[in-house]
Amino acid sequence: MSTAPARRGRPGYDLESLLQVAVKLFNERGYDGTSMEDLSRKLGITKSAIYHHVPSKEELLRLAVDRALDGLFEVADETTALEGPAIDRLTHLVRGSVLVLADRLPFVTLLLRVRGNTKIERAALARRREFDHLVADLVKQAESEGDVRPDLDPAVAARLLFGTVNSLIEWYRPRRDSPAEDLADAVCKMAFEGLRA
Amino acid sequence: MSTAPARRGRPGYDLESLLQVAVKLFNERGYDGTSMEDLSRKLGITKSAIYHHVPSKEELLRLAVDRALDGLFEVADETTALEGPAIDRLTHLVRGSVLVLADRLPFVTLLLRVRGNTKIERAALARRREFDHLVADLVKQAESEGDVRPDLDPAVAARLLFGTVNSLIEWYRPRRDSPAEDLADAVCKMAFEGLRA
Repeated sequence: MSTAPARRGRPGYDLESLLQVAVKLFNERGYDGTSMEDLSRKLGITKSAIYHHVPSKEELLRLAVDRALDGLFEVADETTALEGPAIDRLTHLVRGSVLVLADRLPFVTLLLRVRGNTKIERAALARRREFDHLVADLVKQAESEGDVRPDLDPAVAARLLFGTVNSLIEWYRPRRDSPAEDLADAVCKMAFEGLRA
Repeated sequence: MSTAPARRGRPGYDLESLLQVAVKLFNERGYDGTSMEDLSRKLGITKSAIYHHVPSKEELLRLAVDRALDGLFEVADETTALEGPAIDRLTHLVRGSVLVLADRLPFVTLLLRVRGNTKIERAALARRREFDHLVADLVKQAESEGDVRPDLDPAVAARLLFGTVNSLIEWYRPRRDSPAEDLADAVCKMAFEGLRA
C-alpha cells in the first residue's frame, strides 16, 4: 500500500491554485464572459467544490485584483518612505512596478482590463487612480526640482511613463524573455534617458 | 409643407455612421460580447436594415480594423520611402502613428484588443506583426548607425517604443486633452530623449 496520505475532499485544488486557473480564464475570455460553470469545467470539479473555497465569482476577482494592487502599493509605500530627490523616488517606483508586474503578470493583466461594472471593479479603479496620482505628484515634484525636462507637461509625462510600464502585459512572458531585473533596467533607461544614443 | 427632401429607406444611417456606432459598442462590450441584435437595439433600426448596409458582424470588424491598419501602413509606407538616417525615419513612424491613433482612436482601440479568434482577427494580427517588424528593423538599423543607445536590446526597445504609443488608447481623449500634434511631440521627446532634464 502507498504511504502517501489518502486524498480526501476536493483533490488537487486549494484556494491559491483555483485562483490562478480563474485568473487565466478571466484573462482569456474576459471576466464578464466567464461563468462559474466555465470555471468548474476547466478545473474538472463541481461548482459546489469551488464554492467550498470561495463564495462567488466576484470574490475571485477581488482576490485577484488585490494581489496586483497590494504589490503595487507595497512599492508605492516604499517610495513614499524614501528620502532624496523626487526623480530617484520616481525611478524606484518605476523599477519596482516593473518587478511586481513581471512577478504577478496574470493578476496585473486582469487589473489593467477592469472596466468598472461592479463594486469590486470600481474599488479597483479607485485604487489605480490613487496610484496614478502618486506618479503624477512625483513627476511634478521632480520637475520643480529641475530633474525633469521642462518642455513636457508633467501630467502627460506621468501617463506616458506608466503607459510604457503597463504595456509590458501585452508582450512580456517571463519564461521566454529576459529576466525581470533586465527588463526593469531597460524600462528605466528608455523612460528616463531615452532611446537616442 | 416642409421643403426638406422626404426621408426614405433607412433613416439616419449610412454605412459610415453605422460602422462608428458598431465600433463604439465593440469597444464597450467586446466584439465577441456584441450581437447584431445588440447593435440593432442601439441603432434603433431592424437587423435587416443593418444587413442592407453590411452582410455580417465580421464584415463590420474587418472594415473597422482595416481603417486602423490602413492608416498605420500609410505612415509605414511614407517611412520606408524616406531617405536619411534610420533614427529620423523611426521618429517619423512614431509621430505619424500617434497622429493616426488620435485621428482614428476607436478603430485603433478595437485593433489593439483583437485576440485572433476568427480569420479576420488573425489577418489583422498578421498585419500588426508586419508593422512591428518594420519598427524592430528600424531600431536595429538606427543602433547600427550609432544613433540608439547600445546598452538597450533593440527588440525590447522597439516593443517599449510602441508600447508607449499604443498605451495612448487607455487615456487620450481628443476633445479633452492636448491636440494630437502636441501629444506626438511629447511622445517623441519622451521616447527619444527621455524624461530626465
